[in-house]
Amino acid sequence: MLSSRHIATPIRAFCKRARYYQAKVEQIDLNNNKVTITRTLDNQKRELDYDFLVIGLGGKTNFFGNKNVEKYAFTIKTLGDAIAIRNHIISMLESADQEEDPDVLSRLLTFVVVGGGFSGVETVGEINDFVRESAEKFYRNIDVEKIRIVLVSAGEKILPEIGDLGKYAFESLTNSGIEIIKNTKLVDAEAEHVVLDNGMKIPCGTLVWAGGVTVDPVISKLDTEHSPRGNVVVDKFLKLKNHPNVFALGDCASITDERTGKPYPPTAQHAVREAKTVSENIISSVRDENSQKPFVYQSKGSMAKIGKRNGVALLMGNKIHGFAAWFLWRQYYLSTLPTTEKKFRVAIDWFADLFFPRDITILSGVK
Amino acid sequence: MLSSRHIATPIRAFCKRARYYQAKVEQIDLNNNKVTITRTLDNQKRELDYDFLVIGLGGKTNFFGNKNVEKYAFTIKTLGDAIAIRNHIISMLESADQEEDPDVLSRLLTFVVVGGGFSGVETVGEINDFVRESAEKFYRNIDVEKIRIVLVSAGEKILPEIGDLGKYAFESLTNSGIEIIKNTKLVDAEAEHVVLDNGMKIPCGTLVWAGGVTVDPVISKLDTEHSPRGNVVVDKFLKLKNHPNVFALGDCASITDERTGKPYPPTAQHAVREAKTVSENIISSVRDENSQKPFVYQSKGSMAKIGKRNGVALLMGNKIHGFAAWFLWRQYYLSTLPTTEKKFRVAIDWFADLFFPRDITILSGVK
Repeated sequence: MLSSRHIATPIRAFCKRARYYQAKVEQIDLNNNKVTITRTLDNQKRELDYDFLVIGLGGKTNFFGNKNVEKYAFTIKTLGDAIAIRNHIISMLESADQEEDPDVLSRLLTFVVVGGGFSGVETVGEINDFVRESAEKFYRNIDVEKIRIVLVSAGEKILPEIGDLGKYAFESLTNSGIEIIKNTKLVDAEAEHVVLDNGMKIPCGTLVWAGGVTVDPVISKLDTEHSPRGNVVVDKFLKLKNHPNVFALGDCASITDERTGKPYPPTAQHAVREAKTVSENIISSVRDENSQKPFVYQSKGSMAKIGKRNGVALLMGNKIHGFAAWFLWRQYYLSTLPTTEKKFRVAIDWFADLFFPRDITILSGVK
Repeated sequence: MLSSRHIATPIRAFCKRARYYQAKVEQIDLNNNKVTITRTLDNQKRELDYDFLVIGLGGKTNFFGNKNVEKYAFTIKTLGDAIAIRNHIISMLESADQEEDPDVLSRLLTFVVVGGGFSGVETVGEINDFVRESAEKFYRNIDVEKIRIVLVSAGEKILPEIGDLGKYAFESLTNSGIEIIKNTKLVDAEAEHVVLDNGMKIPCGTLVWAGGVTVDPVISKLDTEHSPRGNVVVDKFLKLKNHPNVFALGDCASITDERTGKPYPPTAQHAVREAKTVSENIISSVRDENSQKPFVYQSKGSMAKIGKRNGVALLMGNKIHGFAAWFLWRQYYLSTLPTTEKKFRVAIDWFADLFFPRDITILSGVK
């Protein structure tokens, strides 16, 4: 199992009977069954041989080659990203609280999020709540009327995956003070503004990019079939074509849903089921049972949190919105899915656990 | 109130009726009653006039001019320092787990802490527990016998402030596997080793410097009397000589204990009492009551945590050690003093609170 995540001990803790390397995957040689990894400490290379290989390298933020956006935007994939955004927002509020120039003030209080998918919508909702609540509660010099939270979406709708409910989400976000600019793309960014493809220039102090996902170069370079989006194509047993000992799953794999002919969506709820299928198929191969299981999964639906105690959900055909959807979202995500919020909580918990294993229970009590 | 701390919202939250600037203090002009601050965002300068000024700029790590130590050592003053050390230790363990060269392995598993005071002793105890417990539990390839934790102390004793109990602490640390090198100073550091003044060279992957404290240059430049250690000298009302509207307290001030003729020690328990005296004296001055209160405080004693469920305490003349001292330490620190551990817990708590104000109670429950 390979990973270069920073908070690594939890993964290591799962590997009771596996050998775990925290390292970057440099290259995968499918023809010679070799993986090259480099250690973070000193970039020391090492080659690992495999009998079976599972590729789960996930996705990578896609800036579509725009170097300026890559330079000036925050991304929102990891715990570290969330912490960095939060610290930056506090710094903006602290500066705004001291600012007298109306143009600078307006820039400091403008927050732009790009991307009308789940990631962008949930992020803009969190930022909106955090900025408005903090300003109201702690920053007496900040006029909340001057706060501007913008969501830029390339499509006509947001959250197209959940159909009509996207309309509800759109209205809810708008009502909570978020300005949604639709049918629009971000084309450039500088330190103090962003530029949209309709020519609009928005001075802002914060830009979060949730505008696209692509695959790791290691995936692109694999000598096997790729989907138009660059993912590696696997068969229904989640194996690479021509490489029956290599599996791929999650965001880096393209798995066709045989019932629809379309690929399964790259979501966490699918990935965890794919993992189960892969592990069963490997066990079966090792035991020489020759009974490979195909991956079939009917999505339980999609949910998004859109601000404070509000959400939208499409669950097994049922459309739910408002508090009920938020509540479902909360229960479901906390119980099964690794979301941003859960990552946050769990990571903080693990964190404290590692450093203070002896009395973690006091954590919530100390104020 | 001025501060450049990163996790600033809690301080801001205290300032219900004060105007709070998160900024760096650039200069204090005692003769014209002016403070110059620079904002973190863009180094924009601003001048503030004052009627009364309270200087509480704390201490700064003293590297005694050694640039190499400054470059290669971790310090242990803030929450960020603690997180950085922890991440670095995990990275050392991850690398050691993959290492086959015995020399490199031995270096990765050697952790050096410099400083026989409270900060150094508590840090070496925490690191010792963390490294040994993690290695035993998670890193099957690491031979715990190869772990080397070293404390370098300039004096014959550690924790000289607590007299005989320092001897108990010395033995406890030694018994828990820490190697204490006494009567020795660190004279140089490189990326892969440190050099002691007895000529010994210790290859190591981690160096923590808790070897000295000094004052901020802003304090040194103040046009007023300084103590031999560089702190500003204040009278018994905690006022600067010749500047009755300027107070100083905490680690940057030198306050003579009139009963002994010596300065009060720069500890947190003193600082919080000094703050009370200062605030009362300011209120009295504003009200023109002319009744200034002198600062008199009898230390409640000193305590240190020295590893797992162990500690030493000198409390109102009573010497306590072992579990009882650790337990007292825990209760007392958690209830009154801002220690490293408390900073950790409280900061994590505040952190989660800020981002997820609605259901903080679940924090310990999610695993």
